[in-house]
Amino acid sequence: LILVRGLGLIGTSIGLALAGEERLGWDPNPAHAEVALRRGAVDRLVTEDADPSGATVVLAGPPSAILAELRPGRRGAGRLYLDVGSVKAPIVARAAATELPFVGGHPLAGNEGSGPEAADATLFAGRTFFLTPVSGREALVEPAADLVRRLGARPVVLDAAQHDAAVARTSHLPYVLARALLTLAEDQPRVAQGPAFAALTRPGRSPAALWAEILGHNRAAVREAWEALKAVVEDLL
Amino acid sequence: LILVRGLGLIGTSIGLALAGEERLGWDPNPAHAEVALRRGAVDRLVTEDADPSGATVVLAGPPSAILAELRPGRRGAGRLYLDVGSVKAPIVARAAATELPFVGGHPLAGNEGSGPEAADATLFAGRTFFLTPVSGREALVEPAADLVRRLGARPVVLDAAQHDAAVARTSHLPYVLARALLTLAEDQPRVAQGPAFAALTRPGRSPAALWAEILGHNRAAVREAWEALKAVVEDLL
Repeated sequence: LILVRGLGLIGTSIGLALAGEERLGWDPNPAHAEVALRRGAVDRLVTEDADPSGATVVLAGPPSAILAELRPGRRGAGRLYLDVGSVKAPIVARAAATELPFVGGHPLAGNEGSGPEAADATLFAGRTFFLTPVSGREALVEPAADLVRRLGARPVVLDAAQHDAAVARTSHLPYVLARALLTLAEDQPRVAQGPAFAALTRPGRSPAALWAEILGHNRAAVREAWEALKAVVEDLL
Repeated sequence: LILVRGLGLIGTSIGLALAGEERLGWDPNPAHAEVALRRGAVDRLVTEDADPSGATVVLAGPPSAILAELRPGRRGAGRLYLDVGSVKAPIVARAAATELPFVGGHPLAGNEGSGPEAADATLFAGRTFFLTPVSGREALVEPAADLVRRLGARPVVLDAAQHDAAVARTSHLPYVLARALLTLAEDQPRVAQGPAFAALTRPGRSPAALWAEILGHNRAAVREAWEALKAVVEDLL
């Protein structure tokens, strides 16, 4: 039994990828929930306070929503709680103050779209899915890895801080650079944007509000990555 | 009648795209020339000093080779000389000191490969192909644009300096950033490189020697683009 809380691109794709299993869903936006239901990503919708006994609960909202779920001392009836946020240290720290059987998660997957309409059952196929355990709750990694494999992804266990430093370099800073290149190109002839430019700046076109949140939670690591990049670039120029 | 001088990725693709026209070819590397001939990109190979009367001559080597061809006072028997170098101001300046009926050219096209093996008849389909005329030789733009259209590309006429400033932002700096991101990621877990990272850094995997040449000829504009980018990034962080 799976409960997906947050039916955007990632949550709805998880539902689609687990077709055949019993899946419940909830989203604060009823329109998103309806799309996920209509697309068959969930078998039925539940209310915000639903916490079915023995369920695997996937927290699939943006980081702010995930953090809001992790109230200190919170207990749950589920057997496993897994999130999908792109930043892990603040989430794992917050989860440690709950009583939830929680494992941090982060799939390296996405596409050019957003929302449940853009969801895809094969979004996770062959992708890395990081698992960052809460200290003392490492026994939950194996059931979480089992879920990850059912999505078609490859579980990779990593310390939350190491994860955040790594993705600062491979994902968050690249996003910032893509955004900056798009800004820089605004006053240049559009025809000067060749195929390489389009590929490079594609991540810069993903939702700005979500990225602002992600950067806000991983600013120190991204700034450190930026300082390292500056040194490399100035060496190349 | 077309003579392609330089049978790497771009020169061989030009030959392939012009199938049906009479095409001669030359390359300083006999192995490259043989591949281009075997693939049908040229009808026959000629010697380095061939300069057939009335031919359209495409200078398709790296910038250093193109510049070496543009000796001051050089005359030619061809009706049109067009290059394909990624930097235009130094090449157009050098061409102005020749007597050649020359137009600068730069196709925004490429793929992940290099050399004649990676050539593709459809490489230019729908792509921008910049034409940067030599002052006083603007009448040659139209025949050059005609050739560009036969390649399937869209001719865009631009001043050489404007071209170099634009591609510094949309191509040369992105390449530098891609290289730097690859360097930065070297000491991170490889699994942290998701699909966005792969797309973003693809240009950074193209031939380093060619790029060193390109950057060397457009350093001022790339440095200016880098300063502008730094300001935008520091605003985002």
